[in-house]
Amino acid sequence: MPVRYATPDASALHPVDGVRLGIAMAGIRKADRRDLLLVELAEGSSVAAVFTQNRFCAAPVTVSREHLAAGGIRGLVINTGCANAGTGEPGMVNARRMAAAAAAALGMPANAVLPFSTGVILEPLPIERIEAGLPAAAADLRSDNWHAAAHAIMTTDTVAKAASLQVEIGGACVTITGISKGAGMIKPNMATMLGYVCTDANVEPAVLQDMLARAADASFNSITVDGDTSTNDSLVLAATGCAAMPRITSAGSDAGRALYDAIERVCIELAQAIVRDGEGATKFISIVVVGGRDRDECRKVGYAIGHSPLVKTAFFASDPNLGRILAAIGYAGIGDLDVDRIRVHLDDVLVAEHGGRAASYREEDGARVMKQDEISIRIDLARGDATATVWTCDFSYDYVRINADYRS
Amino acid sequence: MPVRYATPDASALHPVDGVRLGIAMAGIRKADRRDLLLVELAEGSSVAAVFTQNRFCAAPVTVSREHLAAGGIRGLVINTGCANAGTGEPGMVNARRMAAAAAAALGMPANAVLPFSTGVILEPLPIERIEAGLPAAAADLRSDNWHAAAHAIMTTDTVAKAASLQVEIGGACVTITGISKGAGMIKPNMATMLGYVCTDANVEPAVLQDMLARAADASFNSITVDGDTSTNDSLVLAATGCAAMPRITSAGSDAGRALYDAIERVCIELAQAIVRDGEGATKFISIVVVGGRDRDECRKVGYAIGHSPLVKTAFFASDPNLGRILAAIGYAGIGDLDVDRIRVHLDDVLVAEHGGRAASYREEDGARVMKQDEISIRIDLARGDATATVWTCDFSYDYVRINADYRS
Repeated sequence: MPVRYATPDASALHPVDGVRLGIAMAGIRKADRRDLLLVELAEGSSVAAVFTQNRFCAAPVTVSREHLAAGGIRGLVINTGCANAGTGEPGMVNARRMAAAAAAALGMPANAVLPFSTGVILEPLPIERIEAGLPAAAADLRSDNWHAAAHAIMTTDTVAKAASLQVEIGGACVTITGISKGAGMIKPNMATMLGYVCTDANVEPAVLQDMLARAADASFNSITVDGDTSTNDSLVLAATGCAAMPRITSAGSDAGRALYDAIERVCIELAQAIVRDGEGATKFISIVVVGGRDRDECRKVGYAIGHSPLVKTAFFASDPNLGRILAAIGYAGIGDLDVDRIRVHLDDVLVAEHGGRAASYREEDGARVMKQDEISIRIDLARGDATATVWTCDFSYDYVRINADYRS
Repeated sequence: MPVRYATPDASALHPVDGVRLGIAMAGIRKADRRDLLLVELAEGSSVAAVFTQNRFCAAPVTVSREHLAAGGIRGLVINTGCANAGTGEPGMVNARRMAAAAAAALGMPANAVLPFSTGVILEPLPIERIEAGLPAAAADLRSDNWHAAAHAIMTTDTVAKAASLQVEIGGACVTITGISKGAGMIKPNMATMLGYVCTDANVEPAVLQDMLARAADASFNSITVDGDTSTNDSLVLAATGCAAMPRITSAGSDAGRALYDAIERVCIELAQAIVRDGEGATKFISIVVVGGRDRDECRKVGYAIGHSPLVKTAFFASDPNLGRILAAIGYAGIGDLDVDRIRVHLDDVLVAEHGGRAASYREEDGARVMKQDEISIRIDLARGDATATVWTCDFSYDYVRINADYRS
């Protein structure tokens, strides 16, 4: 059960002019399961993407990078059940075949499609099943298929993840709709496996790429479930340009800022949905680090806390064992940190200051906050003006169960 | 239940000439529990120590550093039940009081004693109970008390940890005996909480400190249970000089090398015992990284694997889900790693090469190795001559249970 998250109704996911989605059951790993998604983008769309920094990146990530560099992207194809990662040269051949087959189904050149895969690593991609399933996906192409598309990219997710909003930009109603998936192997480093956000806004490709990099940093690159950076993380932002608006040629213009804000909102909603549905999660935790010299050191502190199994199990137990948070701050790797200046709050409760427990702290106040299913930790490093936020979840028996059972 | 480890019999722990140990039940956190250890060292002993790099280091760590710098160390005092960490200025006062009380019980100056604490963080040290318990510990001082001493420093440990050996150096029989504790919050960075190794060898203090730094690097600094670096990690090496041998004034001499080898063996045995008794551990895993450009990058790879909750839960499940190991190698932070050159073995089974699963790999071979309770992973980075080994354990339901229950 995700922490305070439910998939939006299909009616709440606005179609994006210029985008059609088709779903099929290709039987890639299991029968009777939607496991193949095909996306068609209008001619002239701007497409931006960010990918995992994992050196063992999956074959489809490598192929998508190549195709994106060549430009003219008009389609996406995504399968679940097999990550096509750690598959060597045969994996590359299969990723190219997958893109080519999807392009054929969409009636466009092979390198106009970006391929994506998610699932088990180190197993060969059943490319024939994907090729066999693509005609059905193409026949299913519809602009109001976002809800089904969100379901088609799930693996260990317990709920489908989607977000949608409409904003007025330059007199036009602009739509932004996105889907994401992921629950474990989540510590994105550039993006997460997988996020797809589309808009009908009219934007220059370079401006779109800049917006995506910033939005990814503020959303998918600020979450962690287990600290494991996936081999397949990918986030795609496509802008079809179908909205009746002047083309955005600068991120700094009024229209550019308005569009960026909306894109960031959708990305944060999708990224937080992944944490809320983190494997075994019972709590959603926001770690807000302020007063750092730079954003990097704030993130170090945030991730040290967000990755600590001791902190995460204490949250699971609703135990205000707050010394574990101090220990994590202490080993975050800031060599000249003055711990006597740090202040730690748990929601509104001051927990620590002057290098120890706050005089005003009462165990029952800590216990009250720890019982909530949504908790904020605020750490003031008191040495600068930089800030960063990391979102994470707790660590429960179910995380072990899910990951000890996965594959079986 | 630890993985293939049992506390040596009391008779197997050789007394060290010049070292006496006394134990008491001080009721620091729980009644009827040995929780206080006093160690007396012969006059003229050389004492070396390494401490945690955690910026939130405990008050006793700070006081021990000060006393060690002043020289003339003749005693150690260790309590369990409270870490005296995250306790601010009152914690410093208590740590000094603890050292002074122990020194009084031993009849020596206050700054001749190093104080150590382990237990819950962020709670005040019950100094009166420690002061009240010290006379009983002093009355108990005996040279053959190592077995009881190993028990007196346990917290969440399920077995006491000790190691002892005798070697001939320069015609003299030299004894090295040590104890350690720790099961969770274990990712030492200089040393682990807590290790005490004594020898009757005759060694210059500077040589002893050099030996300790190297031995710590090869042992306690190469283990991880959960990636959490404690606030209290301390490793002490004392040499009483009581053995009938010429003083060792160089680590590079024959006698120096022989002593170092023996110290390293004892330290590795004590460090591995901590992993074998890691919280919830059912498997002992050696991660051997070879072919790196330098030791640092080998350790990065070793720790990325050793900290991955996904890898650790797969070991718990005996599931050869080896793609998780490749993913961890990939995100270890080596920017120019060529994954196509890496070879991964699970014991004698070649798992991955050429960027993917080895052609010769059979699932039943992987499954056979994964069922063992002691497993070796060998990663050849094929880009240099450096190596490093990291020892770790798996991640089970019991880790969550132990850490969700601790304190309650």
